[in-house]
Amino acid sequence: MTAPRLDFWYDFSSTYSYLASARIEEIADDAGVAVRWRPFLLGPVFKAQGMETSPFNLFPVKGAYMWRDVARQAADLGIPFRQPTQFPQNSVLPARIAMLGFQDGWGEKFTHAVYHAAFADDRPMADAGVMRDVLSGLGLNADEVLARAQSDEAKAALRQQTEEAQGLGIFGAPTFTTSGGELFWGNDRLPQAIRWAQRHAAA
Amino acid sequence: MTAPRLDFWYDFSSTYSYLASARIEEIADDAGVAVRWRPFLLGPVFKAQGMETSPFNLFPVKGAYMWRDVARQAADLGIPFRQPTQFPQNSVLPARIAMLGFQDGWGEKFTHAVYHAAFADDRPMADAGVMRDVLSGLGLNADEVLARAQSDEAKAALRQQTEEAQGLGIFGAPTFTTSGGELFWGNDRLPQAIRWAQRHAAA
Repeated sequence: MTAPRLDFWYDFSSTYSYLASARIEEIADDAGVAVRWRPFLLGPVFKAQGMETSPFNLFPVKGAYMWRDVARQAADLGIPFRQPTQFPQNSVLPARIAMLGFQDGWGEKFTHAVYHAAFADDRPMADAGVMRDVLSGLGLNADEVLARAQSDEAKAALRQQTEEAQGLGIFGAPTFTTSGGELFWGNDRLPQAIRWAQRHAAA
Repeated sequence: MTAPRLDFWYDFSSTYSYLASARIEEIADDAGVAVRWRPFLLGPVFKAQGMETSPFNLFPVKGAYMWRDVARQAADLGIPFRQPTQFPQNSVLPARIAMLGFQDGWGEKFTHAVYHAAFADDRPMADAGVMRDVLSGLGLNADEVLARAQSDEAKAALRQQTEEAQGLGIFGAPTFTTSGGELFWGNDRLPQAIRWAQRHAAA
């Protein structure tokens, strides 16, 4: 019997991915479900649907609601949240770094630190200086990681992961996928996705 | 102290409104929250955002997901669901009739019956014959109700309710509004909206 597993697809600029990142470990651990963290880029995914920016910017009345909704949800979760000055942020740099982090074993703590910088401290994640602070704060060699993040290999790894997301039919973030190709979109669906992974763990 | 109250804004063509309609009474009763059912039309609301049809049709990959998601949610709720042949259905006629129903005291049971016709039996709600069957099935004088639904008064009542929804910043359905102007969008937010209504009942 294969252990139940869930893939957590997220973009660093996504507010609801931030909410999911703050609760997924506890929920999955309690349920005995292993989580694979899969950063990807929403930009190409939105573009393929004919959108040049976040739907929250394209539909302003929905966007205004989103800010209120995320603030309420963050309060319920007991996590800090401040509406960032810019939205969406360019998330290419942190996503490339995260790909390295998941190779090296520090991807999850890096993700938490970037989300905190972006949505608690309103710092620009596309800024190399901000990334340097985040990496140093985790005890990593920031210069070395930033250099590797500019390599063709790191760029290709993120591109490939984003293409895999599109191939799975992912159209937003966060998305949770389970074995058997079942897809759940949105932080709200996390508990249901976890139950699905438990029930459908391959025998 | 005013009793806690929630307004439930729904469109008859909305799949997630159907899901909400199936569970709102039990959840609200258990919580001691009174619910006011407010049918309205999503068409003008989408049009004001620059959309000529449902976003689930404008963004097909999201639409495909929606059908899967609603089927899963309906299964979890233990209610029947079949993807209707046409989507979205024109919901003007049932919405006008519902406005009369809430005057006369049969609005809720009429709403349940229309949703069942549409999403369990795949019957076209814009068809006067279908509405006649639904009304007769509730023991009502179908001819009399259908005639009243074509009156200027019934048309104006629905138009006014839809304008009120837009004035509240409603951009989709279902939406729940509570005193103090707090707005919650989507069936997923129903429990949170109920808790908000309880906590913020005017002293």
